[in-house]
Amino acid sequence: MHQLMADGDQVLALSVDYGQRHRVELQYAQRSAERLGVQWRLADLSSVGQLLGGSSLTSPEIAVPHGHYAQQSMKQTVVANRNMIMLSVAAGWAISQRADRVAYAAHTGDHAIYPDCRPEFAEAVDRAIRLADWHEVYLYCPFVRLTKSQIVARGAELGVDFVRTWSCYEGGVIHCGRCGTCFERREAFLEAGVADPTEYEATPMYQRPE
Amino acid sequence: MHQLMADGDQVLALSVDYGQRHRVELQYAQRSAERLGVQWRLADLSSVGQLLGGSSLTSPEIAVPHGHYAQQSMKQTVVANRNMIMLSVAAGWAISQRADRVAYAAHTGDHAIYPDCRPEFAEAVDRAIRLADWHEVYLYCPFVRLTKSQIVARGAELGVDFVRTWSCYEGGVIHCGRCGTCFERREAFLEAGVADPTEYEATPMYQRPE
Repeated sequence: MHQLMADGDQVLALSVDYGQRHRVELQYAQRSAERLGVQWRLADLSSVGQLLGGSSLTSPEIAVPHGHYAQQSMKQTVVANRNMIMLSVAAGWAISQRADRVAYAAHTGDHAIYPDCRPEFAEAVDRAIRLADWHEVYLYCPFVRLTKSQIVARGAELGVDFVRTWSCYEGGVIHCGRCGTCFERREAFLEAGVADPTEYEATPMYQRPE
Repeated sequence: MHQLMADGDQVLALSVDYGQRHRVELQYAQRSAERLGVQWRLADLSSVGQLLGGSSLTSPEIAVPHGHYAQQSMKQTVVANRNMIMLSVAAGWAISQRADRVAYAAHTGDHAIYPDCRPEFAEAVDRAIRLADWHEVYLYCPFVRLTKSQIVARGAELGVDFVRTWSCYEGGVIHCGRCGTCFERREAFLEAGVADPTEYEATPMYQRPE
């Protein structure tokens, strides 16, 4: 949202409830939107999460794997086709609001595990949503060729209050510090040379896997 | 489903509740699946229908337009990006089930009003869902270059019990006979030279618009 506001856009924000255990991210998104004066809506796809079941992000009986993203176990966090579903709903809302574009914050760090964060996936979705309606909406991917640390650096430039942002896949009150996205969060602040204000439950040492 | 069964496929069926007033189509789909011994699931996107509001298919306060599809008023039946949303959810289910393909029954008759029934839209969605996951699923469109009357002819060959199929956009107990999809249904049977067993509330005369 900060990036789009800096672009001078009129922004609408959409969160998607797909049954994620880290539902707290929805509240963080809503509050961020409120602080920025942005209209926020929630799409309730929680029952669809069950249809796509088998991910640790949505099934209480599957534990969120700990450790770095690049490890094999992180594939358990994949919710089948989640990103395309969310982008399709966002595009539908954009079409109905006669908006110009949908913003998608995929970044380069995720590709090995999440094929739907690759630029070629974003290009295919862009083509589909342009063709979906006579009112053309396109997909805007400001971070698709940036690393998470470059995004942190950009956020710092834009004055993002990082304490009020959420990454963790666990459903806790503070960041767990152990799941893949917590590892990436800490690493990104470290690499960007930006002080990390996040309160973590645990800060285990880790080594980036080869 | 009849087409896929004739292809020798193992078939799973998905219906989507997007808040359509003609919810009766969901029951017709479920019963068709039961008769064919096909597993059927419902994706509940009814709250998303509200987000995409403004269509006569989902808003009780907007009447379903009567008359032929090609008339301008039929554009009120567009639910923004409905087909891409449904295809994305179906692709997610297909990925989670390790299925090979998603079947999409778009046909040539709809293009002037529904851009997301065009072959180029289907091709873009096909590319996106192939890229969305390491398990590749593709989009199968057996009817994308057929007219509705050719589909009726194919259905007759396959032994479809047409009385047990639903087209109408109104939420009635029998087909209204007045909405665009009823006009198309009757026209398709007529052109195919197949007896139409459908019970219609009304059978107004009509002329195909130029």
